[in-house]
Amino acid sequence: MRAAIIGATGYGGAELVRILHSHPKCEVVSVHSSSQSGIEYKNSYMHTQDRTPFVLESIDAYEIAKKADIVFMATPAGISSKLTPEMVDAGLKVIDLSGDLRIKNLQDYEKWYKKAAAPKSVVEEAVYGLSEWSKESVRTAKVVANPGCYPTATLLGIVPLVNKDLIKLSTLIIDAKSAVSGAGRSPSEVTHFPEMNDNFRIYKVNQHQHIPEIEQMLTSWSEEKTPISFNTHLVPMTRGIMATMYAQLKNAENSESIHDLYNEIYEDSPFVRIRPLGTFPSTKEVYGSNFCDIGLSYDERTNRVIVVSVIDNLMKGAAGQAVQNLNIMMGIEETTGLDFIPVYP
Amino acid sequence: MRAAIIGATGYGGAELVRILHSHPKCEVVSVHSSSQSGIEYKNSYMHTQDRTPFVLESIDAYEIAKKADIVFMATPAGISSKLTPEMVDAGLKVIDLSGDLRIKNLQDYEKWYKKAAAPKSVVEEAVYGLSEWSKESVRTAKVVANPGCYPTATLLGIVPLVNKDLIKLSTLIIDAKSAVSGAGRSPSEVTHFPEMNDNFRIYKVNQHQHIPEIEQMLTSWSEEKTPISFNTHLVPMTRGIMATMYAQLKNAENSESIHDLYNEIYEDSPFVRIRPLGTFPSTKEVYGSNFCDIGLSYDERTNRVIVVSVIDNLMKGAAGQAVQNLNIMMGIEETTGLDFIPVYP
Amino acid sequence: MRAAIIGATGYGGAELVRILHSHPKCEVVSVHSSSQSGIEYKNSYMHTQDRTPFVLESIDAYEIAKKADIVFMATPAGISSKLTPEMVDAGLKVIDLSGDLRIKNLQDYEKWYKKAAAPKSVVEEAVYGLSEWSKESVRTAKVVANPGCYPTATLLGIVPLVNKDLIKLSTLIIDAKSAVSGAGRSPSEVTHFPEMNDNFRIYKVNQHQHIPEIEQMLTSWSEEKTPISFNTHLVPMTRGIMATMYAQLKNAENSESIHDLYNEIYEDSPFVRIRPLGTFPSTKEVYGSNFCDIGLSYDERTNRVIVVSVIDNLMKGAAGQAVQNLNIMMGIEETTGLDFIPVYP
Amino acid sequence: MRAAIIGATGYGGAELVRILHSHPKCEVVSVHSSSQSGIEYKNSYMHTQDRTPFVLESIDAYEIAKKADIVFMATPAGISSKLTPEMVDAGLKVIDLSGDLRIKNLQDYEKWYKKAAAPKSVVEEAVYGLSEWSKESVRTAKVVANPGCYPTATLLGIVPLVNKDLIKLSTLIIDAKSAVSGAGRSPSEVTHFPEMNDNFRIYKVNQHQHIPEIEQMLTSWSEEKTPISFNTHLVPMTRGIMATMYAQLKNAENSESIHDLYNEIYEDSPFVRIRPLGTFPSTKEVYGSNFCDIGLSYDERTNRVIVVSVIDNLMKGAAGQAVQNLNIMMGIEETTGLDFIPVYP
Repeated sequence: MRAAIIGATGYGGAELVRILHSHPKCEVVSVHSSSQSGIEYKNSYMHTQDRTPFVLESIDAYEIAKKADIVFMATPAGISSKLTPEMVDAGLKVIDLSGDLRIKNLQDYEKWYKKAAAPKSVVEEAVYGLSEWSKESVRTAKVVANPGCYPTATLLGIVPLVNKDLIKLSTLIIDAKSAVSGAGRSPSEVTHFPEMNDNFRIYKVNQHQHIPEIEQMLTSWSEEKTPISFNTHLVPMTRGIMATMYAQLKNAENSESIHDLYNEIYEDSPFVRIRPLGTFPSTKEVYGSNFCDIGLSYDERTNRVIVVSVIDNLMKGAAGQAVQNLNIMMGIEETTGLDFIPVYP
Repeated sequence: MRAAIIGATGYGGAELVRILHSHPKCEVVSVHSSSQSGIEYKNSYMHTQDRTPFVLESIDAYEIAKKADIVFMATPAGISSKLTPEMVDAGLKVIDLSGDLRIKNLQDYEKWYKKAAAPKSVVEEAVYGLSEWSKESVRTAKVVANPGCYPTATLLGIVPLVNKDLIKLSTLIIDAKSAVSGAGRSPSEVTHFPEMNDNFRIYKVNQHQHIPEIEQMLTSWSEEKTPISFNTHLVPMTRGIMATMYAQLKNAENSESIHDLYNEIYEDSPFVRIRPLGTFPSTKEVYGSNFCDIGLSYDERTNRVIVVSVIDNLMKGAAGQAVQNLNIMMGIEETTGLDFIPVYP
Repeated sequence: MRAAIIGATGYGGAELVRILHSHPKCEVVSVHSSSQSGIEYKNSYMHTQDRTPFVLESIDAYEIAKKADIVFMATPAGISSKLTPEMVDAGLKVIDLSGDLRIKNLQDYEKWYKKAAAPKSVVEEAVYGLSEWSKESVRTAKVVANPGCYPTATLLGIVPLVNKDLIKLSTLIIDAKSAVSGAGRSPSEVTHFPEMNDNFRIYKVNQHQHIPEIEQMLTSWSEEKTPISFNTHLVPMTRGIMATMYAQLKNAENSESIHDLYNEIYEDSPFVRIRPLGTFPSTKEVYGSNFCDIGLSYDERTNRVIVVSVIDNLMKGAAGQAVQNLNIMMGIEETTGLDFIPVYP
Repeated sequence: MRAAIIGATGYGGAELVRILHSHPKCEVVSVHSSSQSGIEYKNSYMHTQDRTPFVLESIDAYEIAKKADIVFMATPAGISSKLTPEMVDAGLKVIDLSGDLRIKNLQDYEKWYKKAAAPKSVVEEAVYGLSEWSKESVRTAKVVANPGCYPTATLLGIVPLVNKDLIKLSTLIIDAKSAVSGAGRSPSEVTHFPEMNDNFRIYKVNQHQHIPEIEQMLTSWSEEKTPISFNTHLVPMTRGIMATMYAQLKNAENSESIHDLYNEIYEDSPFVRIRPLGTFPSTKEVYGSNFCDIGLSYDERTNRVIVVSVIDNLMKGAAGQAVQNLNIMMGIEETTGLDFIPVYP
């Protein structure tokens, strides 16, 4: 498989370059940037010196289609909605890491993203690529909408309970925490080191654009349709997301039975690791890897279950899952090129 | 006022030394340690060199009472329960920064702390010193149980809603995040720099010993008696706590009216700052100071209010509030010696 | 004393606001910004909410002179060179925290700063305010050029040896490390949290604009005039500078005699603390304070002395020393309003 | 090749587990610990869950030799000196990551390490494995003394100048900075998060045990035998070392010619990357990889060259270089299993 990367100067694009460098079945043939074409890639990312021969190229779907079979769109919101139709026309498969093709209800997209939605036909064609739960449809997809970082951590953690109809969905509260690389590479006052170091912030209270994505997907596993509380914080660290989730159970349960359920559901999912009962994952334990680690506990006092899910936001939350989807599309072992042990400490 | 500090080699004790160094009305006359008596204080804390003449002394209530009027107990759980009766007998006032005198129900203390409780009479005499809400009783107290760091952030943030009976208490979820200094000065694998740096952890899931403290105090403002969900995380930073709180309202409200309520309730509280509507505090904005900063928002979609409360865990969460209580006991302006602008950035 | 602060939205200006808030003899009467006049100060710095009534004002020397006695210039390079003459004309005293008035040789200024120099008369009038070594001239100064952060750490550490003619100045190597707040408040890719966190950089190799400042001052204590090696690194922390200095001795010495010399020289300097022999300071031990802590050792194997000097770059390296100079100019105790114990941990 | 890892619960051992997990030609057959035998490996390192089937075993050379061809000693100082003779006797090859076999002069070892030296015969047999400079002798070695982290960064950076006799060795000053993982996994007050975060320390001034290692190796490329100044600092980060090196040149040079020299010398070294002139590496640019990145500049003003060398202390400074040496011993491509692009950001 030959791949092109659009938006290679962002963190998602750089992570694709890193992973695909050692992928045995997929070669990067070109990297693209709308603003920096003609510039050597290593000028953007000195850590790739001597390993990436790339010069950034401008974006022309038909030129790309001459050399590549698939494109990764690692672009900010509002770009893929315009470019993907051209890529598809040119005969390319597309894996879109942005949010542009995830929301099936175009009004919802426009309300939460405050941008014009992609054409209806493209959005309808796009398969939501939460690898563990959408394997069949990803396998044959031409366009994959790669899930957002927060929705990936959230859904992998909570879908087993939703799918089995064990929780009252209206009581679901997701308190999420992200590393700062989730904010992208553009500097700002919020991400300025002296302001973010030794600091902990909450942001976009009740307004994060991943809310409609999570709600849409929950309804695909549940009859109940209800708004949920989802809030996000910035942690002074580079990589990692933790979603701490609380929900009331329909019937009293015990931790063991829920734990068994998770182990069973994810038995054949090589990237989901269920922690032994009584222990919980921390973000560093998945650093640089494609794992999603999950811990859970049932609290008798409150009849609530707590589920804790961690990922590396740039890996399972972006580039890693994109390559996992690529592997599924190629019909090869889904761990190909991704079977790293996390970088610890 | 002449004060002695027991447990001066811990972080709470060191913070008392720092604050009282520039307090105009209270002088530290001695610092004490059970394990390091005879050693110069600066050997424990080189940052105090040339500013603290202290040599650590052993702990003898009657000797202390010869020089001091009041003792601060900045000791781990299980110490004050034994020492406070002696201190009171010797005629000393006590401000206890540990959890030993906070829980009125002795069985609850023993269940959550897994230690023997203090004598019933001492616990009953102790006034819970959440300064903003207990001013009258602190003023005349002989023994003050200084609130825990998490309960301080939580209660200052949520009590206005509880007190006005606006929320369904059974829906209250408190997702709390703390800096690592909250774990004290003893090194451990969890707090080892390479393991904690660039990491985010959850700990003591559903088992934190501050749960009974919060529940006990909530019942003092509410008729409803119900277990609440309270969970705690470690943030890779040195100081600061954020409590993110979610609760369903009994009746639909709007953000403005709730915001007005908070402004009104804390109008005369110099250390509580309500953020302008639409903005939320981050922990660094109270670093090194005695402030508790609060932001809030009402979410129509879910009929939930979210309240965000931040403090410096060593200041308003420990030594700062202890000195604030001292000021109240002395009948002087409660900001005396505490009117720092936070250290930012 | 009534003071105005120019450039109050930068970190140096914010630190002046913080310190002067609790200074008993100097009141801030106005804060100024060329770009944000008319805006409430708390909008720039929420940590000052409820403690600073200020609205940012534009900069007009004659208007300022109606209300203030002295101005602090906390401006980037190239501003004070233009504004200070006006301030002096308007009858104001000036303490300039920028580099504009420090370099007596105007060509050197223009070469290293790549900006037009201030008028010769103003530069000549300006007294270099390294408080411990320039007390007499600061006392009567109208214009003080407040030293740079790196030169302060460097000179306080090495001048005793230079002054006593103990080292070969040509062998002096200063390897300096700074926290990121030294780069100011403007965000950039270098200071973007995900790039700076868990990272250590070297920058401006052999080209830092503090080189001519250090060399100029060394010649004021030494007959030898020689270029020195001075290099700077960025540490992933918010505050603090360490200068590690190496020099060959003219004659063999021992650590004890050098240590005695330092203790003697700084005996009456309340902000310089000499560490006990065998121990060395770390930056956190001066965090938020005006101290300069110094450790040293003589290495027989190489006949080199190593001197380690640490400061808080925003305090002794900027605003703290500026206020110390203010105190000296006012003829009051130089620790007034500055006698903080460092914030530790 | 079948490998055993002794000391697998330390950071060096864990990094070997991580790398060898995806090494195509070397399989880990057992992991050993003197104190934790019988315990599942994932209990020490949850990040390896589901990827390491290992149970820690006790250390018995003859048992190990039944299953393995080579052992990695990732043990603290003082262990390998005792175990390596047994391993060699049992017919095993040894790559020792500790300092025990590096110092040829046994008195020097005992003086700097304050431990009993290994038997003379073993030390003599051990080949110092600085891969780029010792390839021939490593290829046929039975015992490899894997270089220390600081000596690796230092020697790769400075040997080209020493080897070509361009610098006055007596003027060489190495100012080194390390991440905290270099201190190992045992918690201590120095590495306690609240004390190390936002802090910068100097330690072991003039007394670091890597001094004799560096001096010994320099004399293997130089006729000049002279003590050098080498000092070490702790940076608040998890991984990475920077060595900043200063030396006076024998003759005036220019940056270009020195830069050309480095490019030429390291032309065939896949893990050494010379930065373009005018740019310098930072530690994050080699994070998680086996690279050593080098930048340099000649300063006309002082006739000094400055060389800056960065590595990941756990990779090129320990486990990565050990595997590189393994590859060389096996006669396969030296990048096998090591060709990672660094994890950035």
